[in-house]
Amino acid sequence: MFYGKGDVRWEQRPDPVIAEPTDAIVRVVASCVCGSDLWDWRGARPPSDPHPIGHEFVGVVEEIGAEVTTLKAGDFVISPFTISDNTCVHCRNGVTTSCVRRQSWGAAGPDGRMNDGCQGEYVRVPLADGTLYPTHDMPDERLIPALLTLSDVMTTGYHAAVSAGVGPGRTVAVVGDGAVGLCGVLAARRLGAERVIAFSSHTPRQVIATRFGAADVIAARGDEGAAVLRDLLGDVGADCVLECVGTETSMAQALASVRPGGRIGYVGAPIGGARLNIQQMFSNNITVGGGVAPVRHYVPSLVHSVLAESLSPAAVFDLELPLSQVTDAYRAMDNRKSIKTLLRP
Amino acid sequence: MFYGKGDVRWEQRPDPVIAEPTDAIVRVVASCVCGSDLWDWRGARPPSDPHPIGHEFVGVVEEIGAEVTTLKAGDFVISPFTISDNTCVHCRNGVTTSCVRRQSWGAAGPDGRMNDGCQGEYVRVPLADGTLYPTHDMPDERLIPALLTLSDVMTTGYHAAVSAGVGPGRTVAVVGDGAVGLCGVLAARRLGAERVIAFSSHTPRQVIATRFGAADVIAARGDEGAAVLRDLLGDVGADCVLECVGTETSMAQALASVRPGGRIGYVGAPIGGARLNIQQMFSNNITVGGGVAPVRHYVPSLVHSVLAESLSPAAVFDLELPLSQVTDAYRAMDNRKSIKTLLRP
Repeated sequence: MFYGKGDVRWEQRPDPVIAEPTDAIVRVVASCVCGSDLWDWRGARPPSDPHPIGHEFVGVVEEIGAEVTTLKAGDFVISPFTISDNTCVHCRNGVTTSCVRRQSWGAAGPDGRMNDGCQGEYVRVPLADGTLYPTHDMPDERLIPALLTLSDVMTTGYHAAVSAGVGPGRTVAVVGDGAVGLCGVLAARRLGAERVIAFSSHTPRQVIATRFGAADVIAARGDEGAAVLRDLLGDVGADCVLECVGTETSMAQALASVRPGGRIGYVGAPIGGARLNIQQMFSNNITVGGGVAPVRHYVPSLVHSVLAESLSPAAVFDLELPLSQVTDAYRAMDNRKSIKTLLRP
Repeated sequence: MFYGKGDVRWEQRPDPVIAEPTDAIVRVVASCVCGSDLWDWRGARPPSDPHPIGHEFVGVVEEIGAEVTTLKAGDFVISPFTISDNTCVHCRNGVTTSCVRRQSWGAAGPDGRMNDGCQGEYVRVPLADGTLYPTHDMPDERLIPALLTLSDVMTTGYHAAVSAGVGPGRTVAVVGDGAVGLCGVLAARRLGAERVIAFSSHTPRQVIATRFGAADVIAARGDEGAAVLRDLLGDVGADCVLECVGTETSMAQALASVRPGGRIGYVGAPIGGARLNIQQMFSNNITVGGGVAPVRHYVPSLVHSVLAESLSPAAVFDLELPLSQVTDAYRAMDNRKSIKTLLRP
């Protein structure tokens, strides 16, 4: 439960029950803390009433409502960080985050009923057929962390790379060395990028960026970092830049790093009303695309590679704690002692 | 010559001569006034010293410098609105407007020598091999206006459509009923758009939009106009929006008109430091791309259709004046009595 700045508590809550015939109840196998949860922890958003928190999990279906047709008790499922029906005009267009019936975890649904947070033991999943992706069979235990990244960070990094137009022959720069940025490195390589350059000044993250396929790591930031990048690339910026932070500073670094005619894929949730300077984009024909990642749309195209271990993003989890130590998880990520912390109920 | 707000004069200037071995001298067959020239006429840009003005023309090569290899005296040529070498790393990447040796018409070149404006009788063309596109043979006289649109408005409208991702099956909305917006309608149809919807409240422009292939014309503006658009499209925005004005208001209308996951192609030169609200883009996965059109890159793919009359944008010229009446041309366009005025030396 989130109570306010620096105040996340592990407490007993009633077991969820089916409320709508389209609901499912899922037992959480693994959850985690997101970089965007830290904005709440740090008090960067307006204060709110106490509410359940967490929006990433994998688990096992315990019970389904009468109208659920694609799931059964015992199915292993991956949950996206947003709730969607996967049938509306926007879902069919691949933008499940703009679903006409979209809901959020840890926030009130259309009938005013509070949705569960996913940092918990059990979750009531609205619109279960549309929201959950079932692998059906229980995967090997050691694949759980990698599968959990599909709930948010891996699919978000992938969305950044797709939105930046990454493809064979492209040079790609990644701004942000959090879990999403690191997954962006992996995604860029998967999409055929010729050379991926990661910005990171933090040794453990540099190591992962390199393991995920970054050919170069630049420790310098801002315009200085962009100048190092252009030196590496023969005085030309990158074809594609993945902006995986969400601040005005990080977007400025992305704009300084991209070549004329290049594309920026942005997935960092914009905090503080960041605005884009369109004159700068205009002069150099920079395209900016991306946004909140439509996870449900991407899971089917990535899950088989994770199960086959040809896509292995699990290294972004460098700390695992029992759910009862959720407060320590927030603290470790806030202090940058952990990139991403996995929670086991 | 541009002297200041509301002050453009027809006056005698020295005939240009070859100054660099890469120059050519071209006799202007037709030129015109651009919507962006009106920003100067209206005093929207900071005051400057008097300078030659105009950046669109077609003409005939009179003389070439010693190093010019692709042109000869007598060749008919189309000139882009920017000067580029067409060989540098950015030109080879299709972004001729970011050429490392780029220059502008009516502004000082790298050696401080003032470049000619194109609202004139003769023009010294720097980097002539890279800048000019020769058809070589003199085209039929009645094709001159259509060929002149390739110098800016048709290729700019095309860039908007390409940047907005227009293709078969797409619904396309066009914000701006100036010559560029109208050419954007034509471009969208050429790229296979299923349905093109133009915003215009001005009857003569509505007529041209319809003739160019717009299935619907919406007279309402802003959020009201966007609401009419969504009604037409079953409560969904357009897949692609062409933003052909360049103001914060027009960009807001574009953002209100595009569907989640859709793309805005923007080519209106941003005036007044317009900024984009990235939160609005983020929530709905809106991509914004485009910028100053790399005309030289597009001319080869469009010119044959113009010569074959399968692409006929000439209707954007609704007034033709002798060059000596250039002031009347500015006045007619400023008062919206003319969409675009052609000038004959």
